[in-house]
Formats: sequence, structure tokens, C-alpha cells
Amino acid sequence: MADSDTIHTPESESNVIERVAKRKPPRSWRSWLIGRPMPTADAPHQTIGKAVGLAVFGADALSSIAYAPQEMLVILAAAGTQAFRYAFPISLIITGLLVIVTISYQQTIHAYPNGGGAYTVARDNLGALPAQVAGAALLTDYILLAAVAISSGVAQIVSAYSFLFPYRVLLSIGLLVLIMVANLRGVKESGRLFALPTYLFLGMTVLAVGAGFLRYLMGTLGAVADPPPIEFTHAAQPVTLFLLLRTFSNGTTALTGVECISNGVTAFKEPRPHNASQTMTWMSAILGVLFVGVTFLLGQIGAVPSEAETVISQLARTVFGGRALLYLGTIAATTIILVLATNTAFAGFPSLTAIIGSEGFLPRYFTYRGSRLVYSYGIVALALIAGFLIFVFNASVTALIPLWAIGVFLSFTLSQAGMTLHWWKAGRLPSGQTTPDADSSPQFDRHWKWKLAINGFGAICTAVVTLVFAVTKFADGAWIIIILMPTLVISFFAIHRHYVNLSKTLSLKDFGMPGRTRRHQVIVPISNIHRGTLVALDYARSLSFDVTAVYISMDPVEGKKVRNLWEWWGDGVRLVVIDSPYRAFLEPFLEYVDTLCTRLRPGERLTIVVPQFIPERWWHNLLHSQTAFWLRFALLNKRGVVIIEVPYQLEALS
Amino acid sequence: MADSDTIHTPESESNVIERVAKRKPPRSWRSWLIGRPMPTADAPHQTIGKAVGLAVFGADALSSIAYAPQEMLVILAAAGTQAFRYAFPISLIITGLLVIVTISYQQTIHAYPNGGGAYTVARDNLGALPAQVAGAALLTDYILLAAVAISSGVAQIVSAYSFLFPYRVLLSIGLLVLIMVANLRGVKESGRLFALPTYLFLGMTVLAVGAGFLRYLMGTLGAVADPPPIEFTHAAQPVTLFLLLRTFSNGTTALTGVECISNGVTAFKEPRPHNASQTMTWMSAILGVLFVGVTFLLGQIGAVPSEAETVISQLARTVFGGRALLYLGTIAATTIILVLATNTAFAGFPSLTAIIGSEGFLPRYFTYRGSRLVYSYGIVALALIAGFLIFVFNASVTALIPLWAIGVFLSFTLSQAGMTLHWWKAGRLPSGQTTPDADSSPQFDRHWKWKLAINGFGAICTAVVTLVFAVTKFADGAWIIIILMPTLVISFFAIHRHYVNLSKTLSLKDFGMPGRTRRHQVIVPISNIHRGTLVALDYARSLSFDVTAVYISMDPVEGKKVRNLWEWWGDGVRLVVIDSPYRAFLEPFLEYVDTLCTRLRPGERLTIVVPQFIPERWWHNLLHSQTAFWLRFALLNKRGVVIIEVPYQLEALS
Repeated sequence: MADSDTIHTPESESNVIERVAKRKPPRSWRSWLIGRPMPTADAPHQTIGKAVGLAVFGADALSSIAYAPQEMLVILAAAGTQAFRYAFPISLIITGLLVIVTISYQQTIHAYPNGGGAYTVARDNLGALPAQVAGAALLTDYILLAAVAISSGVAQIVSAYSFLFPYRVLLSIGLLVLIMVANLRGVKESGRLFALPTYLFLGMTVLAVGAGFLRYLMGTLGAVADPPPIEFTHAAQPVTLFLLLRTFSNGTTALTGVECISNGVTAFKEPRPHNASQTMTWMSAILGVLFVGVTFLLGQIGAVPSEAETVISQLARTVFGGRALLYLGTIAATTIILVLATNTAFAGFPSLTAIIGSEGFLPRYFTYRGSRLVYSYGIVALALIAGFLIFVFNASVTALIPLWAIGVFLSFTLSQAGMTLHWWKAGRLPSGQTTPDADSSPQFDRHWKWKLAINGFGAICTAVVTLVFAVTKFADGAWIIIILMPTLVISFFAIHRHYVNLSKTLSLKDFGMPGRTRRHQVIVPISNIHRGTLVALDYARSLSFDVTAVYISMDPVEGKKVRNLWEWWGDGVRLVVIDSPYRAFLEPFLEYVDTLCTRLRPGERLTIVVPQFIPERWWHNLLHSQTAFWLRFALLNKRGVVIIEVPYQLEALS
Repeated sequence: MADSDTIHTPESESNVIERVAKRKPPRSWRSWLIGRPMPTADAPHQTIGKAVGLAVFGADALSSIAYAPQEMLVILAAAGTQAFRYAFPISLIITGLLVIVTISYQQTIHAYPNGGGAYTVARDNLGALPAQVAGAALLTDYILLAAVAISSGVAQIVSAYSFLFPYRVLLSIGLLVLIMVANLRGVKESGRLFALPTYLFLGMTVLAVGAGFLRYLMGTLGAVADPPPIEFTHAAQPVTLFLLLRTFSNGTTALTGVECISNGVTAFKEPRPHNASQTMTWMSAILGVLFVGVTFLLGQIGAVPSEAETVISQLARTVFGGRALLYLGTIAATTIILVLATNTAFAGFPSLTAIIGSEGFLPRYFTYRGSRLVYSYGIVALALIAGFLIFVFNASVTALIPLWAIGVFLSFTLSQAGMTLHWWKAGRLPSGQTTPDADSSPQFDRHWKWKLAINGFGAICTAVVTLVFAVTKFADGAWIIIILMPTLVISFFAIHRHYVNLSKTLSLKDFGMPGRTRRHQVIVPISNIHRGTLVALDYARSLSFDVTAVYISMDPVEGKKVRNLWEWWGDGVRLVVIDSPYRAFLEPFLEYVDTLCTRLRPGERLTIVVPQFIPERWWHNLLHSQTAFWLRFALLNKRGVVIIEVPYQLEALS
């Protein structure tokens, strides 16, 4: 028992600080949803091998088999079903493009062993503007990847269970929210999580394509039984070059995601560039074979593109005949890999916004890591925008596709162009010279001419595809992107300018000391005389001897009453009553404050003490006119005025 | 030119106060929309004669001819077109009810010459609970009047111009917004504005009914040419008592608005009760004749109720034959009177919310008169709720009707019951005694027994109709009102309790003086060290010697940097660095504040000085994480903590 003579000493300051720092965050609805906060020290780092790497970085690219062939047929359908035979040759051309892009990107992997996304490559080699263009292109790319992959995944589900068709927007958005929450929790051990479904998908697709070819060779393949009705039944157009180019444009969506590995070289086991490069070769080879194979078989079975049943579903149905388990397995594997592709967007988008944010071209809070050590703002932003797109475009892959690939190919082009310049600079260097920063500066390379040629060719090819895309898909929706992209880039630079100005203005460089405040002139606006007002008045008096209470009188009778009451309760403080014949409160008060501001003497500050009513229950706020809120809002923009809110809680006063 | 020796004296204080009070409000988008503010002294008062009174107060009641007969047919249609012949006898019963209600209300007019709405009568005679029930009933009544009258008005337009049918919700809401803006401006000289269209409507309707009867008597009336298809084509039900009661219930919407005159007795020229009473007689007589007449003729011409063409349109078409001008005149007059009926809701609803608000059962701001001397909050609230109903019920009169009349008849019942009690009390008084407050207290009346009988009979009749309505329309939508009404009444009392508690807590009765603040303990949370921080720090130091800067460190490296910078810039102020391993800012800071709060000594107050960044442009706010906002929000609920916001505007610092 404490001696009654003991001097009361509260907990020591250092104790308090330590206790506050050590306190574990309490459970809340947020911790229930996304898990308990994780301390910064827990940030994980793990590397992956080639097999897992193929799964993690390949899901995005490989999943495009689910929609790219279908979207080619959608365009050709305008010229009638007999035009479907053009799909196969076009798929071969696209595969050729895939080879060029793959070789071109493998050079990037070796030159940027710490990760060389289009943004980094463009920034290091081309400058700020191309870098921000690449950034804008990549961000729209990720958003559309999420929207398209989710929509396509739901389209697969709807193909198998057609009664779900009316709910596809709801299903898509529900799935998106699930993936968002999973990412806000932080996807731990994502490698193992990805490997199984990706290989399941590969297995099922190889099985389907293989079985299809076997039956084709044996002549037992046949056509799709009971295909969905053709949706474009108006008069068939002729097969024009424009139509074929549009088909090609839609087909190039097969290449989306190819660049993923070059962004994530650091995730691989050493030797990183070697492993990453080999993984990329495998991925492209598998993608090319499956893409061509699927397109070929679709032509053979006479598959019909439709919102109601995907062509993958038609293919699986036809190839596997009545084997429901194999059919459902294919649909399930396709859906899951599309969900994983969406997850790729949820990994890439927040990282990119964090990089762009750290350079001041996006709001800084994109660089904050949330309670689960993930970039929460980026994750939520992606979900919101992708969800909006899914809602507006009714979860239709066909409607979303024209918005997409232009950003992908723009970023390809900038990346390859950056690499071309990279080799050019490398060729200028004297042989053997190395620079200290091995990551971003070019080093001399004996084969620089060859490498320059390869990347240069890649850049030209992808630039041509970008142009073809912009022209042929303009009317279908690409115009949105063509308007959006410059808008984004301009916004990036406006944001950057703001941050630069801010840091200049706030900078303490060449700054002496702010002028000392020597005197306070205090104003207390009152709307009535009650306990709350008196508490505020007491506070005001403790700050300065120069206190003025201001009452805006909308009614002469009330004004007189306040004057009389003030004589008793005003504690000797001066009361100014301003008549307001138009019954406005804010305007006369603000004008009065303005006048006082112009009369401040050096070292004097104007302080407004606002009595702030704090109700017991939140809904009580609806019963009050929130004058204090508007007053504060208006005063905040007045230069040099300080606002003091003296709260009076109901229970505190009683 | 001023002498350079003159001591600088700024504008005198009284000058400033006068200048501020005399200043005319500047032009703004608001003044463009609703007109320039009007000084309180301009509040108008005018009285009207009987003819104008019939127009102003009759628009609501008379306009019901536009929908009441139609809604009777809608119900009968379920039993096939041959059931339409029941409409006429039912309309006669409803007219009988109209006579009873009219006579009953005329007694109210004489007893309450200063205006006796159901709310006033129930409050004075029955007590607080029935008064609030009447208030809730009347408010829902006004809301539904606005929704139904607008929807019916647009239905008339759509009948004449069928291509507008898909846009009827948009048209209705557009019209509602127009009427809202007109009412926010304040409808001046509303009498003359109302008189012309009301009499135009009466003229056109009398002409249509008259011409119809003439042609009926001459045997040339015939049937509607090309009537709209019957919408209820499923198997015809038998004509049951329940169906007839539902028809009756729908028909009683003809009585809505009859009570208007009793609310507005003060608007009449002297002798007010006499004039108001006579006007009411005329109104009811016209309404009864036209209602019965229209219903009869509709039966003769075989009109079919439809969302696509109103029965009024069918009647006018048939009666006037090919005379397009007369037809369009009828449609136009009907539409305009329905708009005027809506305007009645916009007059009644805000006045009633102001009355209920002044008694503390609704938020007080309903009693504030806006810049144009109208109850702006009530006007906007009505438009929002009515607009919501129009949107949800797709501007369908048939869908809205079941929600309506139950409130009307409930208020009729409460009003008549109140009057019954009024006469009962009057009968108890000794003969000739008068009470000082002639308006609310009963006075002895020789004929009190007769009057009691009349009001009692009225109360019983309307109570029965209310019950019939509640039962027969329950499934059609009346259940919404049956749930809503008690909810509203409970809310009213909850609001009232809040205001009573508030005024008790804030009361200065038996209040000495608040304890003087003798010492300030000041905390300055900082997120960084820059010019804004230093300005806040200087302000804090001018308040007290006991200042502590608090930095929440999410990263040990940054924490160390801040500590070092503080040694130079901290001005000797103590800095507390709290580690936050979970990267949270708010939670550790709030816990620290909590600890300090528990250690305050008597007369000491804890003040938090928050450096508040004010950006140059509003969108710059999107680039900052608004920590100060959340901090303030969290601190406001801490008992006894005072928040000081020291703004640093970008331009102010540079």
C-alpha cells in the first residue's frame, strides 16, 4: 500500500512512449477483413525458380488464350462464318510478332537484371516525358487486364452455367472485390499458390488441343453441337484489308503480359537474368503453340463467338465429347488462370503507382504501405477503376478489348525504343569502361550493333502495331484511350509541378526563423449564450486580453436579448452585434474578419475561437445546421487566420 | 493629402459594423438561380378574396379529378371492362363522404379563424402524440401529393405526345426541380398566378363534361375511338366486395386537398371564417359535380385506364371529336392545374416542417427562412423525397396512389376527433365564459351538441375509410406507410428529446461560472520539419511554455533524421519521438494524447496545435493524405481537448 505521504508521480514519460510504441493494434472490422497489421520488420523476401516463375509471371500471358482467339472471330463474324478461315493465318503472323517481342525483351532482361519495366527503361534512356507516357500506358494496361481477365473468367463460368448469364456484372464485381481483399491481406507465398492452377490450366489446355489434333487427324473431330446463335446477323460485309487488320489487332491481345518477366527479374534465383530469360523463352513457346493450336481447332469445329458461350467452352465441349469432368475441368482451369491474371494486375499496378508516386508524378500516398505491408491505395484504386469499367461495359470482353491493347503496344514500343538508345549509348562508350551504377547506365557491349538492331526492329514492329490498333479500333473505343493517355500524362506533370513547388516553398534552405507571434487578437463568434459559449469564452480569455465576442443578429428582438444576457454572463468581454438584414450568418462574419485582418499589427495574429458542439450520437449532427463546419471551411482559406475549436460535449458539460 | 504627422487611425469600429450590416449580398450562381436575397423587412402579407381563394386553395382538391376516376377504373379493370359500371355508384358514395368532410371542416374554420390544420387541432385538443401522428400523416400526404400530381401531370402530357412516354420519369423530375426553384425564389403574388389556370381548368372541364352530357342526351356520344389496350388481360376476377372496397379506396383520393382551406383561413379577407367557409362550400360542390360527371361519362364512352393515355385524354378526345384545339386545351389545363397542386405541396410542407421544427420535433433548421424569405430546407427536403418516390415508382400514378390516401384520411380523422373533443370541452364551460387565448382554447357555444355530433360523425366516417384503406391497399403499398408512420412519430419524439436534453445541459440556470483555464499544455504533432511546422510551433509557443512536439516514427532512419533536424530548428522545444512499428500514425498519437489527458492538473487544458496545409487549388487536396482532417475528426470526440488549426497556405509562406 502506498504511503499517503508519497508525492504523486505519474508514469514516467519514457515509459509512456515505450508503452504506446509497443501496443499491439486492437482487433477491428478491418483486421477481421484484411488481417491484423504487420510490423515493418516482417517484410518478406523470397526468390523463385524457373518452374514457379513460369507460373507466377506466365499466368497473365498464357491466360490470353482464353479470349484472344475468340475476339479475332468476333471481328471476322461481321463478314459471315466463311471468313473464320482467315483466323488461322492471322494467328501465325501474331505468333511471329510474339517471337520478335520475346527476343527483344530478353535483351532487356540481361541489360536490366534488377527489373526493367517499360517505365524504368523509358525513364533511363528516353527521359521524363516518354517515361510518363509509358507509365500512363502501363497503368491503363493493368486496369484493362483486370477488367478483361475478370470478365473473361466470368464468361467461362457463364458458358458452363448459363442461368448465371444475367448476373455476370455482379459476379465480376464480386470476384474483383474478393481479389482486392486478398491483395489487401497480402498474398503470402504467392509462388506456390500460383503454380498449381497455372500448370492445371496448361495441362488441361494441352490435353484439349492434343485431343483435338488427334481427333482431327483421325477425322472424328466434327463440328460444335448446338452452337450459340451468331450475334452479327445483319448483311455480311466483304472481307476487306481493314477487317483483317481489325482481326489482327484483336488477336494481338494474345501478347499482353509477355513483358511481365522483364519487370520481375529480381524475383528469380541466381543467376537471375539467365533464369528469367529461359523462363520467358518457355512461356512464349507454350503461348505461341497453344494460341495457334486453339485458333486452328476453332476453325475446324466451326466455333461461333458469343457472349453466352465462350469458344473455349465450345472447343472443350466438342473435343471431350460427353466427358463432363474433362469439360468442367477445362472451364474451371481457364477461369482460375484468368483470376490469377487479374492478380497479376493487382501486383503490378500498385508497385508501378508506388514507383511513379515516389518520383512525385502521382500522389505520394501511393507509396505508403498499409497495415499489411502492401500498397493499399494502389490496390483499392485499381479495384475501383476496373470495377467501374466492368460496370460501364457490362462485363463484355468484346467491348473492353478495343480499349486495351493500344496501351500494351505503346509500352512495348517505348521499352524497345529505350533499349535501342541504350545500345546506341553503349556503342559510343570506349571498350571495357564500366560505370558505377551498373543498373541504369549502359555498359560497353561487343555485340551492341546486333542488339541495337534487334531492339530497333522490335520497336518498329510494335510501333506499327500500335498505329494499326489506334486506326482500326478507333471507333470501337480506342478513342477513349487516345484521349485518356495525354490527359493522364498532363496530370502526371501537373502533380509533379505541385510537389516541386510545395517542397520549394516549405524548404528550410536559406530560411531564418518565422516572425515571432507577440500578440493575439481573439474573436469568438457566438450564436447564443449558453454553457458551451462560456467555455469557449473562458478559453479565449486565457489566450489574450484582446477578446471580442461577435453576434450576428438576424432578428432585432433576439439581438436585444443577447445584449442583455451578455451584460451578466459576458465576463466584461466586449460584444459586437452585427445586424444581418438578409439573415445570412457566414457572409457578414467573414467580412468583419476580413476587415480585422487588414488592421493587424506586426507580430499580431488573428485567432477565431469557434465553440464546437459535439453531439452524443452521430445522428444528432443531422439536427444541427453545422454552421461551425462551414465557418471553419471558409476561415481555413483566409490567410494567416488561426482557428481554435473549443468542443463542448453534451455529457462533459452536465 | 494627409499630413505625414497624422497618427494612423483605421476606420472606426462602429463604421465597420455598420458597413458590414449594410452591405448588399454579392451576385453569385445562387442569386442567378433563385434571385437576390431579400431583407427580413420585405416579408409580404396580402389577403385574398373568395374567387382567388378558390383558385389558390382549390387547385389541390380540384386537380384530383385528373386521377381519382382513372384509379377507380384501374382496380375495376381486374374484373374485366363490364365491371366499370360500378364506378358511377361508388363515385356517388364518395361524393357523400365529401359532403360529410366538408361540413365537418367548416366547423373547424369557424372555431380556428387563425388556421386550423389537423396538426394544430390535434395538438390543442388531443395532446402531443396525436399531434405528431397528424404531423407525420400530413407530411407524407404532402410528399405524395407532389409525387402523384407531378406524375399525373406528366401522364397528361404523355397522353397527347406519346413519343415522350419513355422520358416520363425524367420529365417528372425536371418539372419537380422547376417547381422547387420557383418556390426557392418565393412565389410572389401567388394569387393572381393561380387564378387564371385554375379557372381555365374549371372552364375546360365544365365544357368537356357539359358537352359530353349534351351529346349523351342527344345520343351522339359514342365510344372512345382507338382506346389504349387493356393492361390487365389475365383471367378476369369476379366482382367481390373486396374489389369494390379497393375501388372505393382509390376513388377517395378525390377528397385529397379538401382540408387546404382550413389551414389557410388567415389568407382570406375579413370576415375570414365566413369567406373561407363559403369558398369551401363552392369548392366541394364543384369538385363533387365534376367528379361524378366525369366518372359517369367515362363509363358511357368505355374509357380504358392506361399508363399510356389518361382517361381524361380519352374523354376529351371523344367529347370534342376532332377539335384538336379544345382537346389540347383540356390537356394543357389539366397539366397546369396538376403543377399548381404540386405547388400547394411546396407551400404546405415547408410551413408544416417549420411549425413542427419550432416545437422541437424536427430539426430546427426547418424554421430558418432562406435568403428569399422562404423555408428553403423544407422546400429542398420535399423535392428530394418526392423526386426519390417518382424515381422508385417510375412516375406511375397507379403505383403511388396506395401510399397516399391513408395519410390523408388519418389526418382527417385526427382533425375531426380533435374538433369533437373541442366541442365537448366547450360544452363543459359555463355559458358566456371566454378565455384570453381565443385561438386554441374552446369557448362556450350554444350549439355545441350539434357541432359535436357533426364532427363526431365525420371522425367516425373518415376513421372507417382509413381502416378500409389500410386493409384493402395493404398489399399494394399501404404497408410502406403503415411502417413509415410509427417510424416517423418515434423519430419526432427522439428529436424532441434531444433538443430538450440539449437545452437543459446548455442552460445557464443555476450555473455559476466555468472553471478558469489557468495553464495550457500544448502538443504539436509534426510529420516533418518544414516552414509550415515552424509556423505552427511558433504559434504554440506563444500560448504556453509547456509545448511538446510529437513525431510518430514509422521508419527508424527517418526518425533519426527528424531528431537531428530538430536540434537546429526546434527552438528548444521538447521533441517526443514515438516508434510506430505498424506504420500507423493516428492510433499511437491518440493513445499518447489519452495518457496526457489523464494527467491534467486542475485548471489545465490540453491543446493540440495541428499544422494544417491549405493548398492553392482545391484538387491539390487529392494529392495529400488528409491526416490533419482525420486527426481533427478523432480529437473532436476527446473530452476537453482543444484543437488549434494553424494553416499554412503555400502562397502565404513564400
